[in-house]
Amino acid sequence: MTRAVVLLSGGLDSSTCLAVALSKGREVCALTVDYGQRHRKEVEAAKRIAKHFGVKIHKILDVDLTQLGGSALTDRKTAVPEKRSMKEIGRGIPPTYVPARNTILLGLALAYAERIDADEIYIAASAIDYSGYPDCRPEFYKAFREVARLGTKRGVEGRPIHIHTPLIRMTKADIVRTGTRLGVPFELTWSCYLGGAKACGLCDSCQLRLKGFREARLQDPLSYRARKT
Amino acid sequence: MTRAVVLLSGGLDSSTCLAVALSKGREVCALTVDYGQRHRKEVEAAKRIAKHFGVKIHKILDVDLTQLGGSALTDRKTAVPEKRSMKEIGRGIPPTYVPARNTILLGLALAYAERIDADEIYIAASAIDYSGYPDCRPEFYKAFREVARLGTKRGVEGRPIHIHTPLIRMTKADIVRTGTRLGVPFELTWSCYLGGAKACGLCDSCQLRLKGFREARLQDPLSYRARKT
Repeated sequence: MTRAVVLLSGGLDSSTCLAVALSKGREVCALTVDYGQRHRKEVEAAKRIAKHFGVKIHKILDVDLTQLGGSALTDRKTAVPEKRSMKEIGRGIPPTYVPARNTILLGLALAYAERIDADEIYIAASAIDYSGYPDCRPEFYKAFREVARLGTKRGVEGRPIHIHTPLIRMTKADIVRTGTRLGVPFELTWSCYLGGAKACGLCDSCQLRLKGFREARLQDPLSYRARKT
Repeated sequence: MTRAVVLLSGGLDSSTCLAVALSKGREVCALTVDYGQRHRKEVEAAKRIAKHFGVKIHKILDVDLTQLGGSALTDRKTAVPEKRSMKEIGRGIPPTYVPARNTILLGLALAYAERIDADEIYIAASAIDYSGYPDCRPEFYKAFREVARLGTKRGVEGRPIHIHTPLIRMTKADIVRTGTRLGVPFELTWSCYLGGAKACGLCDSCQLRLKGFREARLQDPLSYRARKT
């Protein structure tokens, strides 16, 4: 059975990505990086999702990126934008961009994959209904695959670790539909950038998620504190 | 003045690399990643070197790679090889290989460079008298430059962060000569994989260092516990 490391943040996308890897018959090892996000709800959601799917190995790594800051997600002095229009969300790189985040996450996943002799890494990047982060684009992954091939023992041995981005061309509605089909318990996921009792409904991440459910004509089981009118 | 992040481990190579960046007139910000190496001597050496050269900003990041293990440097249950011949050192990838280390270090350096708006990263990789680590080869850096260009805000803005590897084609003797010319205080550096009172003289790193001084016909000011006969 092919072993795969799945980067699991506990959100809609990474939970669906995990379900995709399972649906392909992979032996999944979930990897959650607690990088000092604004709240603990993501990591807790990741634990619930891994448990729900009976994932045997769920590694949680502490790598505190608040030491570097530079993002609304890793520096509480920077505000998370709210109530932006879809046009605004689609334009430019927002302050929630975490410098080099996916490069760091993939580097850690690569190390973990080598450690446990996994053949694949799954990451839930999507370049369609997304926040404009540069490290969610297909060309970034193409470049990173070369890094994975050239910079590891596995690569030198001719057994490079493959990096899969099954959601890269999916709209948020596609992701919602795929997750629904694969039985992702969306009520256990957490996508909001803030850590309130309920999801805020107004940050870019909540808005993109709600748009996905709306376009898929499905109901998001999460409760929201507010909705953009 | 061009600002550069220099990855500084406190060894012979990274200290020389820092001196090279300074010699090119760069405003150097040193970055040391305390990744849970076997001992504290490297980080202490890095502090001394940064202080010696009057580096104003020296960031020390805690990113504990012992959470992953998989290397003699991050897992004390794996032994560091000693007394290997140069032929053995030049063959294959030794147990001191840390999975995806330079990918992770460069990812962190990239994040830090974006954070402080530095234009360049210097890393002391060398592919000549080296331990066979795949992430020290020129082709790895070529691939990583693409990652840096495509995966960051700076890259999207058309101002990618440049990654310099000034030692990549140097022999260890070349590095010793360059460091000598640029006034690197070798007595303050630490290259040994072990953390004894004196450098062991027998691990691959000590042996490569001693060979470099020998071939440069210069004296290594460090004391060694032993020498391979």
